[in-house]
Amino acid sequence: MHYPLRTIQEDGDAVVILDQTQLPRETAFVRLTNLEEAARAIRIMQVRGAPLIGATAAYGVALGLADAADDARLARVLETLGATRPTAVNLHWALARMNAVLAPLAASARRQAAWDEAHAIARADEAANAAIGANGLPLLAAIAQKKGHPPDPLPEEGGDYVGQASPVRSERAGAVNVMTHCNAGWLATVAHGTAIAPIYAAHDAGIDIHVWVSETRPRNQGLLTAWELAQAGIAHTLIADNAAGLLMMQGRVDCVIVGADRIAANGDTANKVGTYLKALAAQAHGVPFYVAAPLSTIDFACPDGAAIPIEERSADEFGVTDGHVANPAFDVTPARLIAGIITERQLVAAAALAALRP
Amino acid sequence: MHYPLRTIQEDGDAVVILDQTQLPRETAFVRLTNLEEAARAIRIMQVRGAPLIGATAAYGVALGLADAADDARLARVLETLGATRPTAVNLHWALARMNAVLAPLAASARRQAAWDEAHAIARADEAANAAIGANGLPLLAAIAQKKGHPPDPLPEEGGDYVGQASPVRSERAGAVNVMTHCNAGWLATVAHGTAIAPIYAAHDAGIDIHVWVSETRPRNQGLLTAWELAQAGIAHTLIADNAAGLLMMQGRVDCVIVGADRIAANGDTANKVGTYLKALAAQAHGVPFYVAAPLSTIDFACPDGAAIPIEERSADEFGVTDGHVANPAFDVTPARLIAGIITERQLVAAAALAALRP
Repeated sequence: MHYPLRTIQEDGDAVVILDQTQLPRETAFVRLTNLEEAARAIRIMQVRGAPLIGATAAYGVALGLADAADDARLARVLETLGATRPTAVNLHWALARMNAVLAPLAASARRQAAWDEAHAIARADEAANAAIGANGLPLLAAIAQKKGHPPDPLPEEGGDYVGQASPVRSERAGAVNVMTHCNAGWLATVAHGTAIAPIYAAHDAGIDIHVWVSETRPRNQGLLTAWELAQAGIAHTLIADNAAGLLMMQGRVDCVIVGADRIAANGDTANKVGTYLKALAAQAHGVPFYVAAPLSTIDFACPDGAAIPIEERSADEFGVTDGHVANPAFDVTPARLIAGIITERQLVAAAALAALRP
Repeated sequence: MHYPLRTIQEDGDAVVILDQTQLPRETAFVRLTNLEEAARAIRIMQVRGAPLIGATAAYGVALGLADAADDARLARVLETLGATRPTAVNLHWALARMNAVLAPLAASARRQAAWDEAHAIARADEAANAAIGANGLPLLAAIAQKKGHPPDPLPEEGGDYVGQASPVRSERAGAVNVMTHCNAGWLATVAHGTAIAPIYAAHDAGIDIHVWVSETRPRNQGLLTAWELAQAGIAHTLIADNAAGLLMMQGRVDCVIVGADRIAANGDTANKVGTYLKALAAQAHGVPFYVAAPLSTIDFACPDGAAIPIEERSADEFGVTDGHVANPAFDVTPARLIAGIITERQLVAAAALAALRP
């Protein structure tokens, strides 16, 4: 799979990010040169997606450290970045990893070490997501086999889709119909994506895939997913979040794959609000519901979903200026609704996560 | 309860409707003077809500009949109006009632009889919805009693809310928290509403009510509900459709009341897409889920939900111009998820609808 752009990359002593608040309207880049710019990029969701938030935070530490960074400076940098968003645990995981590497070092050695470690975190995310794709591929291949359509190379479609009528086919008989929610594609990570990684892997393997893309109100991250899939020439259909239950009732969904912002030790999973409704509908209709996430998303210190903090975001995201709005950004899907968690190491039952504890 | 505006009213030989495509931004009225204008008003959703669609169609027949309307003319009028929207059965119920009254009459007598019958349908809808409010009130009173907050008169709030910061309180301890979906208030009917009628009745009875209002993508009819409730001074909070599951999991919803576009003989209920997801979440958390609808919404000729046609609307409703979109406007909630159907005659179990067969 060829990804046309990079979500984040080093550029001298700065980091350049793709500004996701402008997509899919416009592909714009933002150059982050200091701590405040990095923290802001996470807070206002110029970068988003748990793995990409983690990587950006790691680079934010590097950007925030002066040539000689004493303990107080290091603590302040970690605190500033840690306060940007509460739910995605990868943020805290990345900051803890940075601290573990940097704290023992002399002040003068920390800045370079921070750049090196952020680079390592970014590359590890890329590798983990590629492995998630490979580990999820057999699930989609099995569905294709069952539907009587074994892998069969397709001509590559799409390519310069932005702003044009879609050249990509929609739902059709025989395809593997995967439903996803929010954006957990390459845009949500350093590369490859999490929930979409198995879809890219299946497409590369010649499996005929069609993706149901939920709009994902109120931020409409589904439009990011539709844009990504169009770029890759993968058939997809945009739907209102409300339509998920009907489509499952009509037998038009073969499986659901979503990403995760934090997975508790018992397998309960926080992900973009609305995920739980899809999991309930999947259960009602015997549709397998998978979570795809790197091991860094598992919070073994968090016993269950009730202990996961749920970020409340601004009413502005609704575009209404009066009246009361509640805007929780995440919800929790209980482990019992999850058929499996696709990690870079293996596909694991939600109830058996403890086996992966480091 | 005082309703500030009329959704539909006679004006000489025309009918004036509130243009709901302009709300809540603007209160504009449209004068319908002929068949085509009436059909268009239903099709493009200047009027919406199953009961109001029925009443508008009835007036549309009156508008469509010339002074002397022969059988061919009558048939053409009924056909034009019947083709506007497929799911709401009240449309077909109203047209069948008009035909039953008009067909036996002399051509010269039909026009006046059509006006009289349309008037009767409109007044009957108003009366039915008032009765739905009265029949639903005990359900909300019982919840209030259980929460230890018996009816207690509140100062009237709100009144000139439009475009101003809301004077209406939001969620709070002790209130009866009702979740609804789409708009089934007075805007969806000739008066009083269906799902919101019991809420108005409870508010009038001094019960402390707070309403969770789902945005209802893609048409955002939740904004109509928020506007209605603000006008009435009833506390409410706008949420993304995606948030319903989380709120129920958190114990912040006491019951769900929704309207209906068609209820099959076995109790399966078609309503605005997304209703089914709320019903699944309500079941998962022991939250009672009610449907409120006049008897005219029950289609005894339709055996079950699988036989209800689901309207597919335009991709334009998403505001995206490229890519594939699926936009089913309704979904079906199975009878087993419905705690009761609140009609103008009584509260009835979904499985016991047959007792109401005329």
